[in-house]
Amino acid sequence: MVRVKLIVAYDGTNYCGWQIQDNGITIEEILNRELSNLLKEDIKVIGASRTDSGVHALGNVAVFDTETKIPPEKISFALNQRLPEDIRIQESCQVADDFHPRFCDTIKTYEYKIWNARFPNPIVRLYSKFVYYKIDMEKMQKAAEYLVGEHDFKSFCSTRTQVENTVRTVTEISFRREGDMIIMKICGTGFLYNMVRIIMGTLLKCGMGMYEPEYVKEILEACDRQKAGPKAEACGLTLVGIEYL
Amino acid sequence: MVRVKLIVAYDGTNYCGWQIQDNGITIEEILNRELSNLLKEDIKVIGASRTDSGVHALGNVAVFDTETKIPPEKISFALNQRLPEDIRIQESCQVADDFHPRFCDTIKTYEYKIWNARFPNPIVRLYSKFVYYKIDMEKMQKAAEYLVGEHDFKSFCSTRTQVENTVRTVTEISFRREGDMIIMKICGTGFLYNMVRIIMGTLLKCGMGMYEPEYVKEILEACDRQKAGPKAEACGLTLVGIEYL
Repeated sequence: MVRVKLIVAYDGTNYCGWQIQDNGITIEEILNRELSNLLKEDIKVIGASRTDSGVHALGNVAVFDTETKIPPEKISFALNQRLPEDIRIQESCQVADDFHPRFCDTIKTYEYKIWNARFPNPIVRLYSKFVYYKIDMEKMQKAAEYLVGEHDFKSFCSTRTQVENTVRTVTEISFRREGDMIIMKICGTGFLYNMVRIIMGTLLKCGMGMYEPEYVKEILEACDRQKAGPKAEACGLTLVGIEYL
Repeated sequence: MVRVKLIVAYDGTNYCGWQIQDNGITIEEILNRELSNLLKEDIKVIGASRTDSGVHALGNVAVFDTETKIPPEKISFALNQRLPEDIRIQESCQVADDFHPRFCDTIKTYEYKIWNARFPNPIVRLYSKFVYYKIDMEKMQKAAEYLVGEHDFKSFCSTRTQVENTVRTVTEISFRREGDMIIMKICGTGFLYNMVRIIMGTLLKCGMGMYEPEYVKEILEACDRQKAGPKAEACGLTLVGIEYL
């Protein structure tokens, strides 16, 4: 038996997220099905990040055990032949038998893209959120500073989830502009349910002048989801990568 | 009667190109239909560039005449409400009554994107060509220099078309890299049928070491389509803009 780690990229547009569920097709389901077909075993992957419906990934991580004689680093090529073109394995390799993609110390990096122009751009519409209003990147950056570090992010967590400990550490939030595209990069050791999208929705209100940057401190301290901004659309979000420490 | 100019952006993935035809839906057809619905007149647009099936645009140009009382610069907003989300007007304005989008001196700018990595990237798959082999950008640039200027581009023109004069002027070909994406920018006063895609297919052969850069001079002088490289896939190509001189 070997344990194999996959780095998985996908366009989330046509999927109901990562995790298997009844009401639609998911990335996990496709990987289980095509790995089982390829390796002639019943394969069940364990994912590092259960991304939401419509969220994209360049570097999600999945792990599975197999008896196959195919060298682990060749599985990427063989599996890509079978996968739909909106899912592509970027790497496959053997890992320690006790490696678990979720119960390890990691830094996860996400990017959120905003097309900030007079009109939507059809070519980036599936991978960014369109915002017509002028956005002040400096205000967003200033507001973001209150969120960097170890905090109770309860205000930035969807109330649909029940997690006991809502303390998380955000190690970096930075913004850059590429033409009319504004890109937020956010890194941290862990994120609550919808946390990145609620942070983006909140910082965007700062960027549009609807919240003062200082108000983000108040939101954080309130530990109340009602205080924060709306959850930004899924399509703007991409899980860029997961670094195992 | 006013003549209105539209700047039109579209994701070409799901269209059979610009020009109306029997075997599939086209950008021209959608614009005629939705403009006619909006303005309650029979509108027929004239396009500047009849892009091929699957080719994208950020700044194609279309012109039409109308009796409407809607101010020309507001038509963009009203029309976007009716268009499918893969077509978006970027600007509408009045132009001179004798302005014709094709019979004017222009510089057209195209970009061709190549995802040059070990594996395809699902997020850019609809807007770039995937190339696994290592590409030498300097060799492509060197080969490209032979094409800049006024030349007979007969070798770079699809034989499916009958055009008398195959002399065109290319004003710029440059390459840049953004991560694993290689982007060719090409500008010129006019392009023959499939010319940009055949140039890209040929320069790519130089970049992969299959042609020496000097061979491009020979191809050009031969005036023979058979000599040049293959036509690169439509999805990598975007008409960035048209400058009216």
